[in-house]
Amino acid sequence: MVKQLLQKSEKGHVIATCRKPNEASGLLSLKNMFAQRLSILPMDVTDESTIEASAKSIRDRYGSLNLLVNASGILSIPDVLQPETTLLKVEKSSLLLTYEINAVGPILVIKHMWPLLKAGGGTGTDRDVAVVANISARVGSIGDNRLGGWHSYRSSKAALNQLTKTVSVEFARRKDPVICILLHPGTVDTDLSKPFQRNVPEGKLFTKEYSVQKLLGIIDHAKIQDNGKFFAWDGQEIPW
Amino acid sequence: MVKQLLQKSEKGHVIATCRKPNEASGLLSLKNMFAQRLSILPMDVTDESTIEASAKSIRDRYGSLNLLVNASGILSIPDVLQPETTLLKVEKSSLLLTYEINAVGPILVIKHMWPLLKAGGGTGTDRDVAVVANISARVGSIGDNRLGGWHSYRSSKAALNQLTKTVSVEFARRKDPVICILLHPGTVDTDLSKPFQRNVPEGKLFTKEYSVQKLLGIIDHAKIQDNGKFFAWDGQEIPW
Ligand SMILES: NC(=O)c1ccc[n+]([C@@H]2O[C@H](COP(=O)([O-])OP(=O)(O)OC[C@H]3O[C@@H](n4cnc5c(N)ncnc54)[C@H](OP(=O)(O)O)[C@@H]3O)[C@@H](O)[C@H]2O)c1
Ligand SMILES: NC(=O)c1ccc[n+]([C@@H]2O[C@H](COP(=O)([O-])OP(=O)(O)OC[C@H]3O[C@@H](n4cnc5c(N)ncnc54)[C@H](OP(=O)(O)O)[C@@H]3O)[C@@H](O)[C@H]2O)c1
Repeated sequence: MVKQLLQKSEKGHVIATCRKPNEASGLLSLKNMFAQRLSILPMDVTDESTIEASAKSIRDRYGSLNLLVNASGILSIPDVLQPETTLLKVEKSSLLLTYEINAVGPILVIKHMWPLLKAGGGTGTDRDVAVVANISARVGSIGDNRLGGWHSYRSSKAALNQLTKTVSVEFARRKDPVICILLHPGTVDTDLSKPFQRNVPEGKLFTKEYSVQKLLGIIDHAKIQDNGKFFAWDGQEIPW
Repeated sequence: MVKQLLQKSEKGHVIATCRKPNEASGLLSLKNMFAQRLSILPMDVTDESTIEASAKSIRDRYGSLNLLVNASGILSIPDVLQPETTLLKVEKSSLLLTYEINAVGPILVIKHMWPLLKAGGGTGTDRDVAVVANISARVGSIGDNRLGGWHSYRSSKAALNQLTKTVSVEFARRKDPVICILLHPGTVDTDLSKPFQRNVPEGKLFTKEYSVQKLLGIIDHAKIQDNGKFFAWDGQEIPW
């Protein structure tokens, strides 16, 4: 996402966040290529002080934002949590940790970036509005839930969907130049999906490059009427 | 709910749970009238050991359940949390506590009562199946969210809806004689709604008796095809 944002235009700044900037080899090599246009800030969404510090740093340096992508999320953590295959394996600790990272995290980020997004609006883009793009997942859809399982992940994404919708209503009521959308990236070949790729039908596992290209297409063309909606990578709306 | 369950039939046992049985004056006076048919057990859904202890006590004494109503839930707690009127007031602690009580709590209760529900099925009722009725709320609906606000409560109920749907899929797959439904009781005159009743239109605030009568009507007539559905007090389905 960071790479394509930097490559598709010759101007504009990108701020990437991650928990350990010093170990983020992919971001560091981009920093070598785009030294003036890329900033890397430390952020752990479970530690609100790091979110506040990022917002302050962005405000001091740039004063505004025209796009916020909340991509952080977990499905499993080795030795800590595994997606549940049955109710028998549902544990409070997994439910709470997944909720904290996948649902609470993005909402706190929006809370602290809100003034910057209002200041930015669509400035520097072809859009009328700033966009908050929260990366959700089709398995967060309640209406589309036919397989069951993955209780912690599914409920965290359903909650993220509800929180995003709730925030979108306030942005609209205040007539802020900001919209929120929810995006399903498809099943993408990343660390997150690695342990679960066996069951993906042939041709249905996207490269990161393909998925990001599709998601940026949706983001770049987002309109005020899209506020509060949940789109798949191909632009189709997903039921709640 | 407990009173009407006891009154509408001359037989069958009801187990009521609450955090402080010794202070539960309403339940204690029912216990005076229905000494043989009512048990009161301590349960705090944030303390899983109390859920396990209740399940064990029910197993030892009755061996099965044909109905489980998860009614516990919070919207506000004086001096602890208030429903949010704006994103600016969203706090991690409120989001997590509301989630723990409203979404995690009921799912842990189902997990521990599951063997009892399987053993019970529809025995002693006019139904073919045991029923898990989770009391959700219309404001948990993402599709129906037009007003915004109440972030913690809304997202906890959306998560409860997703968890309940997820569990219902497993019950169906295993062909257990158990279904799960979600119920919206209407706006009901209880401690929960008291601070927010000013905005309720005339005639739209239900008595507990009326709401419970409607909900028990839905529960008593529940069929296997209702598994995983979300009904309002009047039997209408609510969008996710
Ligand atoms: N891959 C798929 O098939 C798929 C499908 C549907 C939805 N999604 C969603 O897409 C998003 C991106 O996932 P991905 O597939 O790219 O997975 P990924 O490669 O595992 O990336 C997830 C990122 O989340 C970050 N993260 C985890 N915990 C964090 C925390 N406490 N604070 C801040 N960041 C944290 C990690 O960042 P650092 O370790 O760098 O700090 C990690 O790079 C997620 O929201 C996921 O749910 C993915
Ligand atoms: N009233 C409404 O208008 C309305 C509308 C939509 C949905 N609802 C839902 O209906 C359900 C019942 O609410 P109500 O209106 O009857 O509210 P209420 O009078 O406040 O009752 C809620 C009950 O939840 C229990 N509770 C709270 N924390 C608990 C915990 N940690 N462990 C166990 N029990 C706990 C309390 O039991 P003890 O203090 O006795 O232990 C309390 O009696 C809730 O799920 C609520 O969200 C209500």
